[in-house]
Amino acid sequence: MGTRIGDVSTPSRVAAPDEGIGHDELALAARNHGLPLEALRYDVTPPGLHYVLTHYDVPFTDPEHWELTISGLVDRPLTLTLDELRALPSETHRVTMECAGNGRARLTPRPVSQPWLTEAVGTAEWTGVPLRELLAEAGVSPDAVDAVFTGADHGVERGVEQDYQRALSVADAMGEAPVLVAYAMNGAPLPPQHGSPLRLVVPGWYGMGNVKWLRDVRLTGEPFDGFQHSAYRYRASADDPGVPVTRMAPRALLVPPGFPDFMSRARFVPPNPIRVEGRAWSGHAPVTSVDLSTDGGTTWTPATLEDDPTTHPWAWRHWTADWTPTPGTHTLTARATDATGETQPLEEPWNRGGFGNNLVQEVRVVCVRGMDG
Amino acid sequence: MGTRIGDVSTPSRVAAPDEGIGHDELALAARNHGLPLEALRYDVTPPGLHYVLTHYDVPFTDPEHWELTISGLVDRPLTLTLDELRALPSETHRVTMECAGNGRARLTPRPVSQPWLTEAVGTAEWTGVPLRELLAEAGVSPDAVDAVFTGADHGVERGVEQDYQRALSVADAMGEAPVLVAYAMNGAPLPPQHGSPLRLVVPGWYGMGNVKWLRDVRLTGEPFDGFQHSAYRYRASADDPGVPVTRMAPRALLVPPGFPDFMSRARFVPPNPIRVEGRAWSGHAPVTSVDLSTDGGTTWTPATLEDDPTTHPWAWRHWTADWTPTPGTHTLTARATDATGETQPLEEPWNRGGFGNNLVQEVRVVCVRGMDG
Repeated sequence: MGTRIGDVSTPSRVAAPDEGIGHDELALAARNHGLPLEALRYDVTPPGLHYVLTHYDVPFTDPEHWELTISGLVDRPLTLTLDELRALPSETHRVTMECAGNGRARLTPRPVSQPWLTEAVGTAEWTGVPLRELLAEAGVSPDAVDAVFTGADHGVERGVEQDYQRALSVADAMGEAPVLVAYAMNGAPLPPQHGSPLRLVVPGWYGMGNVKWLRDVRLTGEPFDGFQHSAYRYRASADDPGVPVTRMAPRALLVPPGFPDFMSRARFVPPNPIRVEGRAWSGHAPVTSVDLSTDGGTTWTPATLEDDPTTHPWAWRHWTADWTPTPGTHTLTARATDATGETQPLEEPWNRGGFGNNLVQEVRVVCVRGMDG
Repeated sequence: MGTRIGDVSTPSRVAAPDEGIGHDELALAARNHGLPLEALRYDVTPPGLHYVLTHYDVPFTDPEHWELTISGLVDRPLTLTLDELRALPSETHRVTMECAGNGRARLTPRPVSQPWLTEAVGTAEWTGVPLRELLAEAGVSPDAVDAVFTGADHGVERGVEQDYQRALSVADAMGEAPVLVAYAMNGAPLPPQHGSPLRLVVPGWYGMGNVKWLRDVRLTGEPFDGFQHSAYRYRASADDPGVPVTRMAPRALLVPPGFPDFMSRARFVPPNPIRVEGRAWSGHAPVTSVDLSTDGGTTWTPATLEDDPTTHPWAWRHWTADWTPTPGTHTLTARATDATGETQPLEEPWNRGGFGNNLVQEVRVVCVRGMDG
């Protein structure tokens, strides 16, 4: 009949200058979801409010018969059931996770994919077995360079049929950061959309490295060059080889103060002193400062970082700042800086895949006398 | 400074003929989310996959100090804590709930609001105290005509500042359908986004009647005419008084077969026999038949209804149909009919608010030889 995969699964593209969000992008936005920004109030995000991005379908898995295999360049290939994993020593870490495409729909021109604005983030307490312990048990060959992780989700992307796969170098997989093979989120079994029954959690990295529905870890002697490694690159144009997307760039988000307008999401506050609060994170190093602007970035005031960054080194930090709004319209924005000195840009950092756009958030706040708020 | 609510909270409108989805609609789509259609496989939807629509913010509530008041035209006004409600006799009902705006973004021209395609639905086991028992305890005056339900969510909508409020007639509130004041979803306390700690569940009605974060029930001697009753009406034009949106129109949805393309969400299947399955519901009467078309609505074949409709009379029904795809592209669609004879339209039932668009779903399926699926 002449139907080919490429007829319906087309190459990546950038929207035309005045092209609104299409039905294809909307279908992704309706399936996946961000963190409603008021949920930044929670230290740990309840599961249904944590962002979710699924490339293909959420697979219908069976925890009772799940097996994780560790194969390839190892001395002792392993096959582990969920009960066997649960019987091993576990660790729990509080980890902030963000989609690499967060901010994509704010770029001009807009790369056509999942159209996130600023809300593709969440923080959870993940419990599981440290990957380095499993790899030590299997005995990684000195010839191994990458650990390739395969999920149970299967689909077609930009014309390529695939199981979802990502890799880490052996050094990253067995390094200091506690990479987990996780079976619990916030103390409960993983929900289907977060990888039930098993997922990888890679502290500090964007979400694409945190492979869900994990079924195989394969040690390879060559660097992995699968689809998801060539897709997640910062590229200036389609023919730019680009550089890999890895760790989360610094970002601060604020809890929109007051109460919202349904459609515009603008906020209303009365002219009384308020405490603005939010969260800030970076995958490169601890956040060391957050600055708040209430005039759209013209002037900045240091916010107070409220927590000890050594308690949960892989989680966002809580920040606060006092503000007394005056009647009129204000644009609130916050800006995080980490210990490497990296800070958020005030102009969009455009790239063709729409990755890592940590342009500062803008929240429109209208101060009106005589409201109930 | 001259700022007025109406400057940022504007009247409802309909998009221009070629107007793509805007950032305001996208911000709603990013916050709220539908049921990923593959999750139609579950009889009972896990909470993070059940659709969510929040008009304003998810309020940050405190279950420990929550009080529900029952006031107005009653003999004995009541104030109940969560513990007091939990100590009363409870019921659990499996209920399918759908947003009244489901299908809105498929309308031409498109009403500008939360841009749902077809996925704003879910089914949960809700546990709580029957409203009729609480009202009987309070003693409803013979002069009462409506019970007005107030949630803790507060915002501005189309220029009107408000607490979220909806009402039922006393007849509907105390009628045969088991309206619940629910404190549990699928056996666990309500998640924040589903109304923690208390919500109304009104079997058969669209979601807007199922008031979340419920804090007050007030019996009134006049019919309620608040904002959410004038907003949720089927209107032909802005000046049409219209008729109220109440119960769910019949709808069938199918689990998209095979596996997806990431961006287009088209499905791939090999040329082998498959069982197509889905769910169907109506708020007016039990679903009595579902028909499947694999040629975009030209021909129809009856599907098999798999369950006993009396077991969970307020939940969707499970249906299946066998199909052997041939190489090429096919459009699958299903059509539900209920016991009143009402069936799904094949042409869009346009109205200005974009409510109750139960136009049949369309799923594009590409059958290709030699795929892994």
